[in-house]
Amino acid sequence: MHNLFEIDAWKIVEQKFDPKKQKQAESIFSIGNGAFGQRANFEEYYSGDSLKGSYVGGVYYPDKTRVGWWKNGYPEYFAKVLNACNWIGIHVEVDGEMLDLNVQQPLSFYRELNMQQGTLLRKFKVRFSQGKDLMVETLRFCSMDNDELAAIRFQVTPLNFSGNVKFIPFLDAKVYNHDANYDEFFWEEDSHKVGMKKAYVCAKTRKTNFTVSTAMRFSFWKDGTLLDIHPNAISSAYYVENNFEHFLEQGHCYSLKKYVSIVSTVHHSEFSVIPRSINNVRDAYVMGFDALLQSHCLAWSAIWKNADVEIEGDVASQQGIRFNIFQLYQTYTGKHATLNIGPKGFTGEKYGGATYWDTEAYCLPFYLKTASPEVAKQLLVYRYNQLDRAIENAEKLGFKNGAALYPMVTMNGEECHNEWEITFEEIHRNGAIAFAIYNYVRHTGDKAYLQEKGRKVLNAIARFWVQRFNWSDAKQQFVMLGVTGPNEYENNINNNWYTNYIAQWCIRYALACEKEGSQATSSMLSNDEISAWEHLVNNVYFPHMEGTRVFLQQDGFLDKEQLKASDIPANERPINQHWSWDRILRSIFIKQADVLQGLYLFEDHFDTETLEENFDFYEPKTVHESSLSPCVHVVLAASIDRMEKAYELYLRTSRLDLDDYNHEADEGLHITSMAGTWLSLVEGFAGVRINEQGLRLQPRIPNGWKSYSFQILYQTLPLKIHVHATGGIVENKSLSDIDLMINNQHYTVNKHAKITF
Amino acid sequence: MHNLFEIDAWKIVEQKFDPKKQKQAESIFSIGNGAFGQRANFEEYYSGDSLKGSYVGGVYYPDKTRVGWWKNGYPEYFAKVLNACNWIGIHVEVDGEMLDLNVQQPLSFYRELNMQQGTLLRKFKVRFSQGKDLMVETLRFCSMDNDELAAIRFQVTPLNFSGNVKFIPFLDAKVYNHDANYDEFFWEEDSHKVGMKKAYVCAKTRKTNFTVSTAMRFSFWKDGTLLDIHPNAISSAYYVENNFEHFLEQGHCYSLKKYVSIVSTVHHSEFSVIPRSINNVRDAYVMGFDALLQSHCLAWSAIWKNADVEIEGDVASQQGIRFNIFQLYQTYTGKHATLNIGPKGFTGEKYGGATYWDTEAYCLPFYLKTASPEVAKQLLVYRYNQLDRAIENAEKLGFKNGAALYPMVTMNGEECHNEWEITFEEIHRNGAIAFAIYNYVRHTGDKAYLQEKGRKVLNAIARFWVQRFNWSDAKQQFVMLGVTGPNEYENNINNNWYTNYIAQWCIRYALACEKEGSQATSSMLSNDEISAWEHLVNNVYFPHMEGTRVFLQQDGFLDKEQLKASDIPANERPINQHWSWDRILRSIFIKQADVLQGLYLFEDHFDTETLEENFDFYEPKTVHESSLSPCVHVVLAASIDRMEKAYELYLRTSRLDLDDYNHEADEGLHITSMAGTWLSLVEGFAGVRINEQGLRLQPRIPNGWKSYSFQILYQTLPLKIHVHATGGIVENKSLSDIDLMINNQHYTVNKHAKITF
Repeated sequence: MHNLFEIDAWKIVEQKFDPKKQKQAESIFSIGNGAFGQRANFEEYYSGDSLKGSYVGGVYYPDKTRVGWWKNGYPEYFAKVLNACNWIGIHVEVDGEMLDLNVQQPLSFYRELNMQQGTLLRKFKVRFSQGKDLMVETLRFCSMDNDELAAIRFQVTPLNFSGNVKFIPFLDAKVYNHDANYDEFFWEEDSHKVGMKKAYVCAKTRKTNFTVSTAMRFSFWKDGTLLDIHPNAISSAYYVENNFEHFLEQGHCYSLKKYVSIVSTVHHSEFSVIPRSINNVRDAYVMGFDALLQSHCLAWSAIWKNADVEIEGDVASQQGIRFNIFQLYQTYTGKHATLNIGPKGFTGEKYGGATYWDTEAYCLPFYLKTASPEVAKQLLVYRYNQLDRAIENAEKLGFKNGAALYPMVTMNGEECHNEWEITFEEIHRNGAIAFAIYNYVRHTGDKAYLQEKGRKVLNAIARFWVQRFNWSDAKQQFVMLGVTGPNEYENNINNNWYTNYIAQWCIRYALACEKEGSQATSSMLSNDEISAWEHLVNNVYFPHMEGTRVFLQQDGFLDKEQLKASDIPANERPINQHWSWDRILRSIFIKQADVLQGLYLFEDHFDTETLEENFDFYEPKTVHESSLSPCVHVVLAASIDRMEKAYELYLRTSRLDLDDYNHEADEGLHITSMAGTWLSLVEGFAGVRINEQGLRLQPRIPNGWKSYSFQILYQTLPLKIHVHATGGIVENKSLSDIDLMINNQHYTVNKHAKITF
Repeated sequence: MHNLFEIDAWKIVEQKFDPKKQKQAESIFSIGNGAFGQRANFEEYYSGDSLKGSYVGGVYYPDKTRVGWWKNGYPEYFAKVLNACNWIGIHVEVDGEMLDLNVQQPLSFYRELNMQQGTLLRKFKVRFSQGKDLMVETLRFCSMDNDELAAIRFQVTPLNFSGNVKFIPFLDAKVYNHDANYDEFFWEEDSHKVGMKKAYVCAKTRKTNFTVSTAMRFSFWKDGTLLDIHPNAISSAYYVENNFEHFLEQGHCYSLKKYVSIVSTVHHSEFSVIPRSINNVRDAYVMGFDALLQSHCLAWSAIWKNADVEIEGDVASQQGIRFNIFQLYQTYTGKHATLNIGPKGFTGEKYGGATYWDTEAYCLPFYLKTASPEVAKQLLVYRYNQLDRAIENAEKLGFKNGAALYPMVTMNGEECHNEWEITFEEIHRNGAIAFAIYNYVRHTGDKAYLQEKGRKVLNAIARFWVQRFNWSDAKQQFVMLGVTGPNEYENNINNNWYTNYIAQWCIRYALACEKEGSQATSSMLSNDEISAWEHLVNNVYFPHMEGTRVFLQQDGFLDKEQLKASDIPANERPINQHWSWDRILRSIFIKQADVLQGLYLFEDHFDTETLEENFDFYEPKTVHESSLSPCVHVVLAASIDRMEKAYELYLRTSRLDLDDYNHEADEGLHITSMAGTWLSLVEGFAGVRINEQGLRLQPRIPNGWKSYSFQILYQTLPLKIHVHATGGIVENKSLSDIDLMINNQHYTVNKHAKITF
């Protein structure tokens, strides 16, 4: 695999401008702050191929569904996070000639994403057609300190001339979505104003009426001295511009510092978004670029303190894992329970920017161990707040008595997805949402949340499962028909082992919480309900392969032609690009962990032989054509000591976007699967487990690595773990002593102390 | 059930204009001639709610597919028969006031579809705002004698005034499809001309370049005397008009006779469509309206001679079955192998007007017994001509070596449908196409067709089945995974009994034809192929219910909750309008015959006990939510002597559209399922069977009926069958003696003789 950009432990670096890579670069060099994000489009005009993207978390449009054949129960719309106001724009003209890297081929070019600081830097030299050379340097960031703020420092130095240069800072809210089912325009203007070095444009989404005010303010400097300029105020619908021309002296550096604030009705009232955005840029202007940058960097260093992973001996892996952690925190910081983690984050429009089960299954464990418990809790509260909608969703499908089915894809709790085999049948997502509560509680010990909010969600989910099972006269057990498991290369199957298992577990967990809760606080289930549920969980059917420990993915799985992924000719991989859908469905090939997803979540329920037999049965049939697939296999492979396999699969996850394995980085990054890399390392290589029995480690290290280290929060206590080829160090950075098991041996690490193993 | 219109043995009659019924009436009073068809829209302007529709067989547009989530193998387009030039238009103005039944409420109104003659008649009286009363009578037909021709006689009589009246005969090809995925316009003008009492407009479909010339010519008469008029020639893109004003004398009848010809490149070259259409209307003009009408009626009487069914004692049933036969022959006459039978015929746009398996499964048996063998043969040739496309279609899905999968929906042999569970999996259609060949041969004895063309299709279909089965190690038999059977309330199931059975039968039949053919003409299969196929057909797995004769619809069928259709609350029927798709899928309820479809086709392979046990198992689980469902059950119910059930279901099929059971007659008629009514009577009540053993009858009669009679063609020999409560008459109208079995007794009916039984 070819590296798209240069390898560096803390940076992504591009030394030469390649227009063919521009859209990939725009994704990879994206910046964001959990509240909004911006692809690495240029500030100045660019007439080459580009995917312009600026996204504001939570601001969506219900785009009319596109289906061939309507089926009862389909949602009317697919919510899409919208491409919003272009706030970065600063056009530059020399002698009426627009600066445009598609016209003036740059004489030198340097682009750098600094992941430690969260800044995007560009330096380049261009020659205009009259031979005038201009040096340009731009630095921008979306403030991690104040998530309504961004800033740009756009510097130019005339190298071989003195003369007039025109600067055109602007805001343009006339932005179309690339992804629009019927090519509709999704915005309406609310208002705009443009004054002296400041302006705002406020636009409102059609139908959903999200109002977003984008304000800017700027200053202009010569070598560090503020200049007094008098820009022209230009405006039209959706557009404000504050242009000015200035005589630049050769060899001097001129800086345009543009402060931008984006405020929306996701977090504020309709009346306050405009004044708030204006106040924000005024404050920023007063504070100045350097001070803002400093606060921003401080916020990032607080994140890295908890979340960083260091790898010695493999700088590509080092860069890869940092990139993934960096992009995750750019997408979600846990500040708002109204926001969640879209599969592409703020880097593209695919998948609508909405919430999937990826959040609970992959991202939550990452935040649980790398951030304070409040961050993960916000993700639970997000679902808790949408419980009523999940109940409505289940009612639409014929369920009763407060049964909840959480949507496959959602913005506001309503279902958006419209393939029946996914929307109506990929119901295991309900299980992941219940498991997230359990996972949160075992990591944090926050039983108050469980009793106050968690149980309501658990009981509603359990009610769904209870109704979704049906009694089979033939089997004299409860079966679950017509589901799609995590392996989406099967549809409408019966008795998916994983779904049956997690459903049974959900009901059991709800019953256990009821038992605990009814002593502590209050009873939520009737006695009839409890006894019916108990009867059910004791009589669930699970398909398995006779004479083995192998759990069968579904009924009839052994009727398939028994092949291995290695039997597929290389030119037919990935099969989802080469085979028709029916062929994929009836083949044995598995898209992503399914039975193994269950063994991953419930590892403690099974002995090692069972893990091994199932891994050996399923992994060779798995084509890993979901970005969510390899990580689960890394963890399992490591736990049964298959480090070679584990490392092979780790490589598929850690640099997926950086090396653009799937040839789709131009569309945006695989944000949610990025958590999988971190899981692979922490749960896989280091063998970290946190459960009711406490903390366990079973550290291993890939062959080529010298060492790796990371920190986890264990019940809020920070613990630094360092692993090298022959052992390691655990450093307790907390104020309490910590007990743990390492390689099945018991250790106590005293507060502020280290142990080696 | 309420009758929409009046009951009459040969007519559909409406005595009072009801704008609320207008769209239903437009469907039900539709006329056509197998080449084109026209909804019963008014000639004059009508500003009320209306679905204007004029369709030309074979002229389609590849409308860009609308899907939510693209899947590999989906077709790019859905071919749609297009709404074409409005040729009926004759606007009328009195004192500048447009005749419009939505403005001038008619003082009297009469509409009649004469099924014996194939004419649409309207008579009505209107009062214009100045108190002027006009009597209007219009009669029109699409000529069955010359299928490029139609004619309208539009008569007006001023009842209480003399004065100028303006007539505006026109052609308007600026016609939008109601059904267009992205609201695109599908036509481009080729040319138009307008002269003295004549005009044409020629339009071309975008992308597919079908050119359709519509020409008109007209004359104007006073009480039978031709008048000399000098109309104005008006035209614009897509539009030609020839208006004139004339002073009408009170009490006299004025007739505008408009002759129209529609000629397309479906049947003629691009160079000839315009001259041909012009010549056609010139000839029609010379021949005159009455002579044209006479030829048209003669053509219809020739059809009715073979196809009519008479029912004594139940005029509603009499009207129902004639309506169905009438609409079938309006849709398809067998003149062109390029045409087929769309589910809505020429009465609406739903389902794209394209070809489905309905043709082979339901329509072909009707034409086989009611028309000369050439008609049915054209339907086979249609598929034969598309064999290469069916092979390409299979290749797209990964099949090899000339395996053919005929499309689910097609215009030109390419697949149009885009739901994976149907497009890729509802493959039993291939079986119906093979069975049609067998059915044709056993009815006609035409072995030459079998050897020359039929075997090529059979072998290609057999090759598909051979590849579609796979060996199951677990079962040690061949299985077929991931199919959708005729019961579309199941998707992606394994070992659908019907599909496995018809597939096995196809391979066996192809082998038998090879054996017969290799002696007679030539061998088409290699020895290896033959032995592999023989091995396969002897080792096919079929699911069945242990200890019974019940064949299971699919693997796992007995895991479903075992309910009956009668358990569904009335307010939840039909379930496809009340239940979400997943709930339907996992329920036991059956949309249309599935196992029973197999028992219907292969009745001779099973004993009566098997038919009974399966009927009793499946029928109570069947909700008959396809218009194709009841008829198969009527035939089976009658054959096992359940006449009450048979008649109950017969009622659901015979007046489906006339009484608008499904509340969708406004969109068009259920043309293909209309053949089911005829099958119900002939194969069901009369128990007619034609197979290798010859002709059998097992006549029964519903309780309320006095008698019924019909004719069939048995190996091209016409045989009239009359059934009454205690026996019947068989009349041999052919020149050969005929042997047959009636109620398991052998009879010989001599040529031109009758027998009673």
